[in-house]
Amino acid sequence: MNEFADVVSVGQYLAHRLVELGGPHVFGLPGDFNLTLLDEMLTVDGIDWVGNTNELNAAYAADAYARTTRGVAALVTTYGVGELSAINGIAGSFAEDVPVVQITGMPTTAARNSGALSHHTLVDGDYDHFFRAYREVTVAGAILRPADASREIDRVLRAALDESKPVYLGIPMDIAAAPVSSAPLRRPLRATPSDPVAVDDLRTALGEALAGLDAVTILAGPRIHRRRAEHLLEAIAGHDGVRVATQASAKSMLPETHPASIGVYMGQMTPSPATRTAVDEAPVVILAGTVLSDVLTGFYSMGFDLEASVELGITSARVGAVTFHDVRLEDSLTVLEEIVAGSPRPVSAPIEARWPYRVSAASTGPEPLTQHDLWAIVQEWLPTRSIAIADAGTAMYGALELQMPAGTDLLASPIWSSIGYTLPATLGTSLASDRRSILFIGDGAAQLTAQELSTILHRGLTPIIVLINNDGYTIERVIQSPRAVYQDITRWNWAALPGALAPDVPVLTAEVSTPAELQEALEAAARATDRAVLIEAHLHPDDAPPLLAKLGAIAGGKAS
Amino acid sequence: MNEFADVVSVGQYLAHRLVELGGPHVFGLPGDFNLTLLDEMLTVDGIDWVGNTNELNAAYAADAYARTTRGVAALVTTYGVGELSAINGIAGSFAEDVPVVQITGMPTTAARNSGALSHHTLVDGDYDHFFRAYREVTVAGAILRPADASREIDRVLRAALDESKPVYLGIPMDIAAAPVSSAPLRRPLRATPSDPVAVDDLRTALGEALAGLDAVTILAGPRIHRRRAEHLLEAIAGHDGVRVATQASAKSMLPETHPASIGVYMGQMTPSPATRTAVDEAPVVILAGTVLSDVLTGFYSMGFDLEASVELGITSARVGAVTFHDVRLEDSLTVLEEIVAGSPRPVSAPIEARWPYRVSAASTGPEPLTQHDLWAIVQEWLPTRSIAIADAGTAMYGALELQMPAGTDLLASPIWSSIGYTLPATLGTSLASDRRSILFIGDGAAQLTAQELSTILHRGLTPIIVLINNDGYTIERVIQSPRAVYQDITRWNWAALPGALAPDVPVLTAEVSTPAELQEALEAAARATDRAVLIEAHLHPDDAPPLLAKLGAIAGGKAS
Repeated sequence: MNEFADVVSVGQYLAHRLVELGGPHVFGLPGDFNLTLLDEMLTVDGIDWVGNTNELNAAYAADAYARTTRGVAALVTTYGVGELSAINGIAGSFAEDVPVVQITGMPTTAARNSGALSHHTLVDGDYDHFFRAYREVTVAGAILRPADASREIDRVLRAALDESKPVYLGIPMDIAAAPVSSAPLRRPLRATPSDPVAVDDLRTALGEALAGLDAVTILAGPRIHRRRAEHLLEAIAGHDGVRVATQASAKSMLPETHPASIGVYMGQMTPSPATRTAVDEAPVVILAGTVLSDVLTGFYSMGFDLEASVELGITSARVGAVTFHDVRLEDSLTVLEEIVAGSPRPVSAPIEARWPYRVSAASTGPEPLTQHDLWAIVQEWLPTRSIAIADAGTAMYGALELQMPAGTDLLASPIWSSIGYTLPATLGTSLASDRRSILFIGDGAAQLTAQELSTILHRGLTPIIVLINNDGYTIERVIQSPRAVYQDITRWNWAALPGALAPDVPVLTAEVSTPAELQEALEAAARATDRAVLIEAHLHPDDAPPLLAKLGAIAGGKAS
Repeated sequence: MNEFADVVSVGQYLAHRLVELGGPHVFGLPGDFNLTLLDEMLTVDGIDWVGNTNELNAAYAADAYARTTRGVAALVTTYGVGELSAINGIAGSFAEDVPVVQITGMPTTAARNSGALSHHTLVDGDYDHFFRAYREVTVAGAILRPADASREIDRVLRAALDESKPVYLGIPMDIAAAPVSSAPLRRPLRATPSDPVAVDDLRTALGEALAGLDAVTILAGPRIHRRRAEHLLEAIAGHDGVRVATQASAKSMLPETHPASIGVYMGQMTPSPATRTAVDEAPVVILAGTVLSDVLTGFYSMGFDLEASVELGITSARVGAVTFHDVRLEDSLTVLEEIVAGSPRPVSAPIEARWPYRVSAASTGPEPLTQHDLWAIVQEWLPTRSIAIADAGTAMYGALELQMPAGTDLLASPIWSSIGYTLPATLGTSLASDRRSILFIGDGAAQLTAQELSTILHRGLTPIIVLINNDGYTIERVIQSPRAVYQDITRWNWAALPGALAPDVPVLTAEVSTPAELQEALEAAARATDRAVLIEAHLHPDDAPPLLAKLGAIAGGKAS
């Protein structure tokens, strides 16, 4: 595959790097300042253009694609109008540690230099407004110049690899087609390696911190997933005396049936009291790839000793008060595995996580569907080897308490929590994986990004979408002013939407209001593997999964 | 109406100011950081909450609402996820001189001060990322503190009035309900007045510049519309020897049937050669409220002497090389009117603008509908006293060459040119005016913001929407690579969309492919005044209005 012409265009150079670092798919929309760039990029073998319905949706799809491939994903938009529409999605990639490249096709270098009053500018002669706005939500960026275009591309892409965060590339029209040497492409890009001295120092400090402990208690966070380091976590968990709790957004990263798994930990919102006690009473908690955000910690209600804890981050590690810089998460996990392997511990008493939807079976009768029945039915039905996706709101708080079957993980966004994210995300996961995507999303959320369903359907993708129709923003109702006018949304006929957005594409649709209907629809969905499925499930506006009710009680008192 | 409690909450204070400066409608979406703010604002009489389907659409709707009421319009979003989704719309308001207030409900002051790792943040402890991003696209902003919340609200709103640009207000949850004195509300806010000395100096300089000229040639731009100063333009145009050309985005600001009107001027893209000559050969052109952007000047192809010209801007005026600061457009136009009134000129020979869709009648047969026929039929049909709206793309370039009937103006966005803007904009115009809104929009553009149709329909608004279905991005096809894969969009059944988005709302839908069918559908639409109308008009993907073809030829050569 390393066969390039000696000279390629900047657009081609970038496309080759994207194929190398991510998957074939590039998301976005055309616009008059990116046509040359797209023309160049699309000449490169292995690039598959995914035209989205708008730029925010493109950013969401790219984010989920990168989460699934574990590579770098890219979207291409036009200047100003296009890139600004995507910025919320890119900020989400920052918050959730996803390496997405925002590629902006810009006016010419000459226009920028002269301050020409182009359309898609603020007509004030300043072409860097949006680049500066992007600085707030990316870790690196460049507007390319002829002299060092390929070097800058590599610098910016490496920053995405290094930090697992989004980056920005602005490519003026004239630069997109400018020639550059292809020589750098013969060396694959990789992240900055760890500092071996720091790794050795960490080994010593960590060994001392864990010496004499009966059990090694790990709280595993989403950054392990982002660095594709689950195999290291599983290797660690394979040793006696290791207990692994996971953060909500790292759910099922270690299989939830694994003997070392003790379930999801969220401080006072932890579903199982035994899990909470095990973590809170551990003398040393190893925070591996965690993010200690409000929701993920039950609003900062961790009971363990944070100062005594160990923290393994993406680019540094901390043992007690001492930070070891330039130690990558993969390496600190490897060190941890070596230490655990080298100091045998007794088998820990198993701690059973509590799975509420396993405990109490669903009704199967003709009465109105409740949130409890919905999730209990899903718990029994959820297929192995699939990608469950849950939007912010009742969907996520329901899905968080499911016990995931083997090979099925949960894609959610509890930090950024931008409602509507998951519908375009389902486009990304469906393109990135042959595992089937199963989306749970509320009607309020789905309205924000509904048109991306058309891209999903027209590309012949086959996710199952369970649309939880509860007539508005139930998550906000749980928090405050449930009867306020702003909690209502307009009522749609969801089952009719596929026919409007993709008239010629076969889709299985169902509208359910009882447990029995839902069960039947899900079974039909599992059988209909050749098409997308949209199940509209009607639920009461005030009905919320127990975990969300708990959040509401806390947030009502002290959300901050 | 000036009856307030002595003490009001910050949210109420802001709402009172918005009612004073704009209309009753406030756009946006709820989110957990703005619930208290909304609860406070909605207690104020005269506030009517418009819940949108997403934040970008809310920003677009607010922009068009402000353009129509000529007041300040507001949207309320939550922090991070909400406000960033809206930023493209706010940037558009900057580019197009529209005073919109982006109001963000923020986490508490305590969370911001402590750098808490809240959701909807980048979990890096920095709560000002998005405020800084907004600085790039607004002229003033504040994150409110208890000590000076109402003073800061007034300062920021006055900046919007002064400059006719968007502004930003971040309101932490705890500040939203904080008490403030209502005393300032008894004095209405107004823009900073002109400097009388500068106005006098301008009067002298302008008098000298125009002395001895046989004709006074004015190029009138969109900023006259934004300052609601059309009556001044009309007063000036009422004097003998005055000729008024308009910029495309100021079309019909002076009635196009007015004897002084000489049509639209866009440099080499000027539809009528006589108009172009009259402007280009005038010894002194008065640029009144103009924006000399690429599209509006036919890519900077003005033939007149820019150095000798006079420029009347929103807050300053220029005569030759000399700028008169702090002279508001209303005052400079008043000065111009006085000078013209005081120095009689001979009647100028009339210059007939060329109206291509008047010249050549539409076919009325059964052959496929063309862009020419579409616009020729619309030209004959377009009702008086309505609001025509045209999205970027074939819609705008077609509509620009229509001769507007009395009382009908054109809302377009040729500077920011964000496709999809006009569908939510139609929500804004329909709420702001009892004139009927008539939208022309392409299928590619409409997909970006389609869900806002649901808000339009559920509120019982009755616009006529002509959806130009040409299977993709024809405007980009005209510019470059018409057969590229990225020019295609997915095919929707547009006529089925209202049934999915508003199942219980009566809507007149029609699908037309011939001139005769279009004519019939438009006549039915005009009769159906009690409901919204959606006409899907099928056109060939490569068919473009002549003005767009001209643009394509220019842009292909030297778009910059």
